[in-house]
Amino acid sequence: MADKLGLLAGKGDLPKRIVQKCVSEGRPFHIIAFKGQTEPELVAGHPHTWVRLGAAGKTLSILKEENVKSLLMAGPIKRPSLVAIRPDAWGLKFLAKTGAAAFGDDGLLTRIIHALEGEGFKVIGAHDVLEDLLAPKGILGKTKPDEQAEKDIQKAFQIAHAMGELDIGQACVVQDGLVLAVEAIEGTDKMLERCLDVKRDGFGGVLVKAKKPNQEKRADLPTIGVATLINAHKAGLRGVAVEANGSIIVDQDKVISKADELGLFLMGIE
Amino acid sequence: MADKLGLLAGKGDLPKRIVQKCVSEGRPFHIIAFKGQTEPELVAGHPHTWVRLGAAGKTLSILKEENVKSLLMAGPIKRPSLVAIRPDAWGLKFLAKTGAAAFGDDGLLTRIIHALEGEGFKVIGAHDVLEDLLAPKGILGKTKPDEQAEKDIQKAFQIAHAMGELDIGQACVVQDGLVLAVEAIEGTDKMLERCLDVKRDGFGGVLVKAKKPNQEKRADLPTIGVATLINAHKAGLRGVAVEANGSIIVDQDKVISKADELGLFLMGIE
Repeated sequence: MADKLGLLAGKGDLPKRIVQKCVSEGRPFHIIAFKGQTEPELVAGHPHTWVRLGAAGKTLSILKEENVKSLLMAGPIKRPSLVAIRPDAWGLKFLAKTGAAAFGDDGLLTRIIHALEGEGFKVIGAHDVLEDLLAPKGILGKTKPDEQAEKDIQKAFQIAHAMGELDIGQACVVQDGLVLAVEAIEGTDKMLERCLDVKRDGFGGVLVKAKKPNQEKRADLPTIGVATLINAHKAGLRGVAVEANGSIIVDQDKVISKADELGLFLMGIE
Repeated sequence: MADKLGLLAGKGDLPKRIVQKCVSEGRPFHIIAFKGQTEPELVAGHPHTWVRLGAAGKTLSILKEENVKSLLMAGPIKRPSLVAIRPDAWGLKFLAKTGAAAFGDDGLLTRIIHALEGEGFKVIGAHDVLEDLLAPKGILGKTKPDEQAEKDIQKAFQIAHAMGELDIGQACVVQDGLVLAVEAIEGTDKMLERCLDVKRDGFGGVLVKAKKPNQEKRADLPTIGVATLINAHKAGLRGVAVEANGSIIVDQDKVISKADELGLFLMGIE
């Protein structure tokens, strides 16, 4: 049987799928729920402890007491200001060592992972627990992008990578060569909302999500789900492309069905 | 007396200031108003012709009939899809020659300017007509940025430049090292609106606007006005920095007064 899993839980569907998987396989687990971040429904009826995000030392003690061996971070965590974090002693030491204030989300996560490994934990990714989570390469549904969409995908992919290099975000929307929206920390759904106001007539745009070039694969890979397809459709887009083997599709079968139902293309690109 | 000016008018305050200046100096002018783009109040009582954005050939004929020598583009023009433009014969020739579909806003504007020069017009910038329009270097109001704000300005400036190199946009907001928002084509005011939802506790962020590295100075320089300061304040920001000699402050005195009134810093950086 797999060793006991510690789940550092952010928002969204991914932590739910991890919990379901552990339950169905009988794998022991303990959820670390962060106040103001983790959704309370996630932990109901499951072993869990609520902690402040800044209570890093306490969190590590709990994980050790619970005899957790492997750690998994899943779901986005909203990074508060350093003032609001109120780091405990371990947290202060970590921040002093890394100068984390200067880093974007990605640099910070990589450093957190290394610090957790330094405490003796094995840090794994959501795709190590859930099979079929990483996006495969190729066209995944029935709809195919036309020539214009292909061009927009190429441009959007290039821009998403440039954004990633600057540690800004992971997604953008391009229509007919024009960049309609670029994601910072508002999240993909919010970004899609504003596309409806700025989109041009003619063929709709495309959403592309790509991992940051230096992104730690065990934390916060770009993720899409059924809701992403619904919101992309509402925003007047024609399809969604994500980085193959570098992004997560939660409930892949359902997402492909939804894409087919809405007439959107869905693909993994490299 | 200055020669007759043709004003290709987009939205906002800048075209109004140009018209006021021409009227006050008795400089002859003719406004080209674009359907669905130019604000009707701008042209009321002034010599003007309404044209479709795609009616490039007709626009040039009007300007020549009106004996216009110098041309000035002022105020943002919303780029429609190529389908919606319905270019006339001149427009089609221009598009065929430049392959404009593949360009972002900036590349397109540069090519439009060169084409207008090829038709014998002198193309000038708004700052050639209005003095004190370009942002000067230094702190412009009473409030000074602190060390944290200085760091955020540096980071935001670097990001705005990178966005500009990719021809995405000209503005971004950074708080405590975190990129809160990046502007694509939604415009600065819309970008500021969403900062309120994503901002962190603690010291507020900064807005930086910079011209694109290859930007044609005679078209669409990053622009701020009194409304920008008001919206930055509403968004919880602590100040605004714009590229010195590469961005426009409309009604500079009023903008500085507003910054002082709201306690925001306002500065030109290089």
